[in-house]
Amino acid sequence: MKLARFKVEGRVRHGVVQGNRVKEIQGSIYRKFTYTGNTYPLSRVKLMAPTVPVHFMAGGANYPDHLAQADATSGRPGAGQSIRPWSKGSLDTVCGYDDPIIIPPEAKEVHWEAELVIVIGRQCHRVSPEEAEKHILGYTCGNDVSEKSAWEGEFSNWRAKGMTNWGPVGPWVATGIDPTKLKGTLRINGKVEHQWDCGEMIHSCPSIVSFISTYYTLHPGDLILTGASGVTTPMHVGDVVEVEISEIGTLRNPVVAEKV
Amino acid sequence: MKLARFKVEGRVRHGVVQGNRVKEIQGSIYRKFTYTGNTYPLSRVKLMAPTVPVHFMAGGANYPDHLAQADATSGRPGAGQSIRPWSKGSLDTVCGYDDPIIIPPEAKEVHWEAELVIVIGRQCHRVSPEEAEKHILGYTCGNDVSEKSAWEGEFSNWRAKGMTNWGPVGPWVATGIDPTKLKGTLRINGKVEHQWDCGEMIHSCPSIVSFISTYYTLHPGDLILTGASGVTTPMHVGDVVEVEISEIGTLRNPVVAEKV
Repeated sequence: MKLARFKVEGRVRHGVVQGNRVKEIQGSIYRKFTYTGNTYPLSRVKLMAPTVPVHFMAGGANYPDHLAQADATSGRPGAGQSIRPWSKGSLDTVCGYDDPIIIPPEAKEVHWEAELVIVIGRQCHRVSPEEAEKHILGYTCGNDVSEKSAWEGEFSNWRAKGMTNWGPVGPWVATGIDPTKLKGTLRINGKVEHQWDCGEMIHSCPSIVSFISTYYTLHPGDLILTGASGVTTPMHVGDVVEVEISEIGTLRNPVVAEKV
Repeated sequence: MKLARFKVEGRVRHGVVQGNRVKEIQGSIYRKFTYTGNTYPLSRVKLMAPTVPVHFMAGGANYPDHLAQADATSGRPGAGQSIRPWSKGSLDTVCGYDDPIIIPPEAKEVHWEAELVIVIGRQCHRVSPEEAEKHILGYTCGNDVSEKSAWEGEFSNWRAKGMTNWGPVGPWVATGIDPTKLKGTLRINGKVEHQWDCGEMIHSCPSIVSFISTYYTLHPGDLILTGASGVTTPMHVGDVVEVEISEIGTLRNPVVAEKV
């Protein structure tokens, strides 16, 4: 099932996506919902980030083919050896489908990082990897937008990763899918730049949720980036970037310059 | 004026503190408010964190007598030379007066960091230090609770500083005061452990707001920790920790063990 959060006629709603339409629901995507009877063509709604998280986290470097780059730019070698969580940013960092990735003049080299994103469905604290699975609502696509030149390797990644709209997620949450079976594609202006296999993760999705939950209480709607694969490359103003993951869909965002 | 957020009779309210009473208000503490006519004795209300921030930030090491400790534990020397922001945590990290500082069994050595906290009053982006001042609503007390043994110096401070309730702030926002004139006192179990002078900050409050606003849009209610003075020491389960700042008041929190 594909659970979308969207705006239409000035109001934020939730719905289930079927084909090129979204069927509006009422209730909670985390507990129980019913259909209102309203349906909208996807072309007429504004898709929003599929949840409003309390925590927007990342589990750290998680693919063998990304470790060398992660070690070089993080300033703290050892990427991938253990789950190394960090916070992606605030609600200002989160954005959705078609929202602009905004590049300020101070940023020198801003890369895509195409990633599978875990969406928490039930509150959890200190859950085992075995228990973690039932606390996951589903998965979405994410772009862990990252500055790799001026700011990467700083004391904190508040600006290297946490700028406004540097955390696009969407287009919706896909439930009932096996994350180890998913394939990803990253396109810039329609051209394939990278393809990856989510089955090659070093740390599994349930083990990341379990580890973070040892320290934090995770809430319904919390989002966890699971790491980029490959060697990432810069995005430029004017580009359109797409993160497509099988069984989920495509997250698309334009890259724009900040108006200063 | 002292602006409090509090709970009484099961509902969250705002009010102006006068002596040992709080006069309830309606409207916005950021724009315009009126008195409802209701007043409560402070002893009968539960003081809460004075705002609900989008950003809970810190400006980095900011007192000459704290730099050696900051350099040693951060793993990245250069503390204090420039404003080095980082994110304290999420809304789970924020708590208020009398809320427990919760120590999980995995934390080995948890220190107080007694700090003046800037409270943003008006949305701002790319404001100069001169303009920043009018975007500050006021100031409150904060305890930047920090693990200094097991987790400090990690790739991110998600657990060294961002655990649940590790960011007590309060007891309220004091407006119309000059931050350079304030004196702070840190007490554990009633005994003075440290005293400091906010006038010794390396980077001023307006310059910290200006710097962060170059990258982030700051919102009304956003909180910015301005750095600890002195050499911090551990807190232990059973302690009661007080951060008192002149012209503001006293933030008091008990230290408790997490029930696992």
